[in-house]
Parts: sequence; structure tokens; C-alpha cells
Amino acid sequence: MKPDTLYGPVQQDLDLVDRAIDALRDLDYEPMAEMLDLVLAARGKRLRPALSLLAGKFGRYRPNLLIYLAAAIELLHTATLVHDDVIDNSTTRRGRPTANSVLRNTTTVMLGDYMFAHAADFVASTGNIDVVRLFSQTVMTIARGEIGQDMTAYDTRQTVREYLQRIGGKTASLFATACQGGALLGEAAKSRVAALRDYGHNLGMAFQIVDDILDFVGDEEEMGKPVGSDLIQGTLTLPSLLLLERYPKNNPIRKLFARRRRDEYLAQAVEMIRQSDIPQESYQMAKSFASEAEQALTTLPRNAARRILRDIVTYVLERRS
Amino acid sequence: MKPDTLYGPVQQDLDLVDRAIDALRDLDYEPMAEMLDLVLAARGKRLRPALSLLAGKFGRYRPNLLIYLAAAIELLHTATLVHDDVIDNSTTRRGRPTANSVLRNTTTVMLGDYMFAHAADFVASTGNIDVVRLFSQTVMTIARGEIGQDMTAYDTRQTVREYLQRIGGKTASLFATACQGGALLGEAAKSRVAALRDYGHNLGMAFQIVDDILDFVGDEEEMGKPVGSDLIQGTLTLPSLLLLERYPKNNPIRKLFARRRRDEYLAQAVEMIRQSDIPQESYQMAKSFASEAEQALTTLPRNAARRILRDIVTYVLERRS
Repeated sequence: MKPDTLYGPVQQDLDLVDRAIDALRDLDYEPMAEMLDLVLAARGKRLRPALSLLAGKFGRYRPNLLIYLAAAIELLHTATLVHDDVIDNSTTRRGRPTANSVLRNTTTVMLGDYMFAHAADFVASTGNIDVVRLFSQTVMTIARGEIGQDMTAYDTRQTVREYLQRIGGKTASLFATACQGGALLGEAAKSRVAALRDYGHNLGMAFQIVDDILDFVGDEEEMGKPVGSDLIQGTLTLPSLLLLERYPKNNPIRKLFARRRRDEYLAQAVEMIRQSDIPQESYQMAKSFASEAEQALTTLPRNAARRILRDIVTYVLERRS
Repeated sequence: MKPDTLYGPVQQDLDLVDRAIDALRDLDYEPMAEMLDLVLAARGKRLRPALSLLAGKFGRYRPNLLIYLAAAIELLHTATLVHDDVIDNSTTRRGRPTANSVLRNTTTVMLGDYMFAHAADFVASTGNIDVVRLFSQTVMTIARGEIGQDMTAYDTRQTVREYLQRIGGKTASLFATACQGGALLGEAAKSRVAALRDYGHNLGMAFQIVDDILDFVGDEEEMGKPVGSDLIQGTLTLPSLLLLERYPKNNPIRKLFARRRRDEYLAQAVEMIRQSDIPQESYQMAKSFASEAEQALTTLPRNAARRILRDIVTYVLERRS
């Protein structure tokens, strides 16, 4: 199923979220409007804002508040990518040029800061201090996860456990907050809020693991970025950690990180992973998180939103880009 | 008067603000605790958090809320400096090595993000959604001001008016918010909130102009940074704009920006400004904002806090670093 048709009952409100974000460009300062144009055009599947809206369906559905939360979540995600691209020196994302490839790095950092601030302003517009607090703490968690990733770059002593902790902070925390925040705004019962947070966390874990698998087995054109891009940045993900585990000696990743004949060793690492059952084994781990996510849904009422949340789990596992 | 003895009635609460910020280092992730150590040690005069506390004295003084706002303001300011130093490639600040001179730029950007998020979390701890909103909008304003500065670097067609607009966003907005936020938390009367915001804005304008003068006439050792550092970054401030106005032709700043014999032309520009009455003329502008700030105070009750706010105006004009 394509994400465009996936979000059924919240599709229309999701368009309003888009409009709220697009309104960022309406600035009287032309150079900045152009910059925002550039970074906002590269938005993706709108999965995270959809989660907020859907979670809001398990209490009193209040679109006028939920739209602000959803916009905050999506804009925060986009701001994170803007800073990530500066840090990784990436030139393309989703097949488009990144901000830092067009603007100066300095400008791009500040543009990201502006977007962070605007996301915080969106969430403040919900008027709900608990949701505001949840949001700021999530930004802290994401930044800690990113710093952890940066600090452990090229460090082949990392464990799978540390990897899972890292993606918990870097990715799953925002999925969890998207769901929990939506449920809180709908004033859903406590047990439902907890179930939705649990769903979001596990969905996010599955999402990131699949992302990390696709970085090795995906199609460059569909993904809009080169295969093995994580390894190029020194980032060890589940497939590469499993490859290191299986071949502790004479491993192309170690050679790659020693910075000799990089292209050759990168290609070799990618090929070894593709030829092995490592992608399958990694998918098993993604599936186990996906099952947890589905499990969390079982305590919720059987409504249209719950069905969509289940479909999203399937989509996250099956997506090719 | 030294700032340490300046803050009289809020001195003790200011120490609690420091303690709240210092608590950021209490992380179970050692490498990040060390990084925070580095950036938090370089804190300055605590002028902004003092303003929040003092403004809180014009309503019901609620230290338990004000401390969070003051910590948010000071931490936001520190985070801004962390990103600024990456952007300017600065190696020292207040005589200490900057984060980016010790850490990688990438790590420093994310460290700044973490600090921004923590500042947002502090302000959320006030539980006051109006103050949260004011804060997030101020971060947006600051980021716009910084982007404006970045976009106009090396552009000698700038006007003094544009400069004033820029420092209004980059600096005065945070002073204004420090005061307004404190007043709001104290539930001060509307007219007092407005007067304190007005005071903060004008104080911030005077503060930045003096800063920009000191960049030319100050003592390198006292300031902990090289003389003319703004010009080195291509940033035109009031003294350099006045120099451009007076010598439209054959101006060392134009030659400096053309990137030939930089040291020579920088020294020449600094010397010309120092020898002229440009510092005096710039001080006149700072003084006129300072008078506005004092004027704003006259509508407030004559209490100890008001006397201190007046002393701060004098301090801002007379400071040497």
C-alpha cells in the first residue's frame, strides 16, 4: 500500500498539516523564504504527523490542536535532517540537493535552528504544557542519540545492544512522542496513552532497522542516496554489526575504516551483506519490534484508526525506500 | 560596579539558576558530560537571567518559576554562542577555548541542539504556556537575526538602519523576553509587563552597540578575543558602517573584504576608527537607547529591583569587556 492512500480518515487533516508547514515560507525576508522552500520541498511520507492525528482518534478527536502537534513533529524531523546533512556532508536526500549543498554550512545550521524554534512554537500552539514538555524532552533524547552516533562512529567495538539504544533515542523516541502526544491532546485514558506510546516506540524501532537494511539492499534510485551511505559516514548499523560479528578477522569494514582503498572495501562489505542471510536476520529483528507494535494495538478499541495503525506496521516492514 | 555585586536582591536566586544549569552535566553518558562541562564553564556575567529575576519583582515574586525561566534564557544564550563559534570558526571566547576548537564541528552543532532543547524544557517547567510561546518565538527571531547577519556578511551596501534591525533580532529580543517573561510569571499588571519589555529591548540595543564598539576599542586580554573580530568575519557593525559612510572611497574595509593583504587593512580600519570620533558617535547611539530604557523604568514602582535595573543600564554603558 502506498502511504498516500494509507492514511484514510486523517488524510484531509494531514493536508492541513502540510499547509501549516508550507506557511513557513510566507516571510517578508525573501532570501530566507527561498531557503525554506528548498528544505520544505524535500519532505517525505508524512508518517510521523499521520501517527499524531491517528493517535488523536482514541479520545476526543480535536483536529485544531492535533494539526499543530503534527506540524511540530514533522518540522522537527525535517530540521533534524537539515542538521544531519550538514554533519554528514550529504549532497542529496530523496533525490534532491540538500540545503548544505546549495547554501553555506553556516547558513544551513542557522536555518535548522530556525526550524527547531518554529517546531517548538507549533507545539506551544497546542496550549498543552504536558505535550510541550514531552516534545522538548524528545528533542533532548534525539540530540543525545545523534551525539552517541557521532561519538561511536568508526568504533567497531559497538554491540547490537548499543545500536538498539541509539536508534531508540535517534528515531523511535519521535515516533513514540508523535503517538503519545496525539493521545494526550485527545485526552485519551491513561492506558490508551501508554499503549499508543508503546506502539509508536516499537514501530519506530522497526522503521529504523528496515531503513538500515535498505541502506545495504535497497535501490539507489528509489532511495535517492548511495548504497552503503551509513558505512561511508562510519556509522555501524545492524547489518554491518552482524557482519563484524560473523567475520571478526579480515573484515572489509575494518579495512574500510582504516581508510585504504575505500571504494573497493565498501563495495566488498555491501556485497558480503547482500549475499548473506544478514538482511533476513535483521528483518527478523524488525519483525519482532513490529509484532510488539501490533500487540500494543490489541488493547485499543477496534476503530478505523486502529486498522490504519496496523496497516502502517505492514507498510513499514514492506517498504522499499 | 562589577556585575557580581550588582544583582543584590536576586543574587541568591541567581546562584540557584547556576545550579540548575550546572545540573546539565549530571548525565550518565560521560563523553557528553565532559562536553557540557566545557561549554558551561565559559558562562559570562549572567545579565540576562538576572533581568528575568528582577522583572519578577514587579508582581508576585515566584522564585520557583522564575529560576526555570532564567535558566532557560541563560542556556539559550549559551547554546547560541556554541553555534556561533562553529559558524565563525572561533577558537577562543572569554579567553577559553571554544567547544568547536576541541570537539568536531559536527559534535558541536549537536551539542548546541541539545542545549536548545534543554532550554525549551526549562521554560516548559514554568508551566506557563504564554511564556513558552514567547520563548519559542524569541528563538525564531534570534535565528532570523543570525541568518540576516550571515546573508549580509561582506556586503558594504548595508545601512545603519538595517544594522539596528539586525541587532534588535539577534540580541535585544532576548533581553526583552528575559524581562517580559519574568514579569508575566509574576503576573504583573499589563502596563508593567509592557514597560519591562520596553526596558529590556532598549537595554539590549545599548548592550550590543557597546559590544560592537568594544570590538574595536577594547583590550584584547580583557575581552578574551582579538580586536576587530567582527570585521574578520565580514560582519559590519555600527563603527565600521560609520567608517564606510565617512570614507566611501579608498576605505580599508573595502580593501579588507577584497581579501588582499588582510592583516594590514584590518589594522588600518581599526586604527582609523580608534583615532576618529566614531566610537563617541556610536556611544551616543548606545546612550540614546539607554535613556529609553531608563525612561521605561519611570512608570514602575520605586523598589529595590528598579534601582538595580537602573544600575544595570549604567553598567552596560560603562563596561570594558
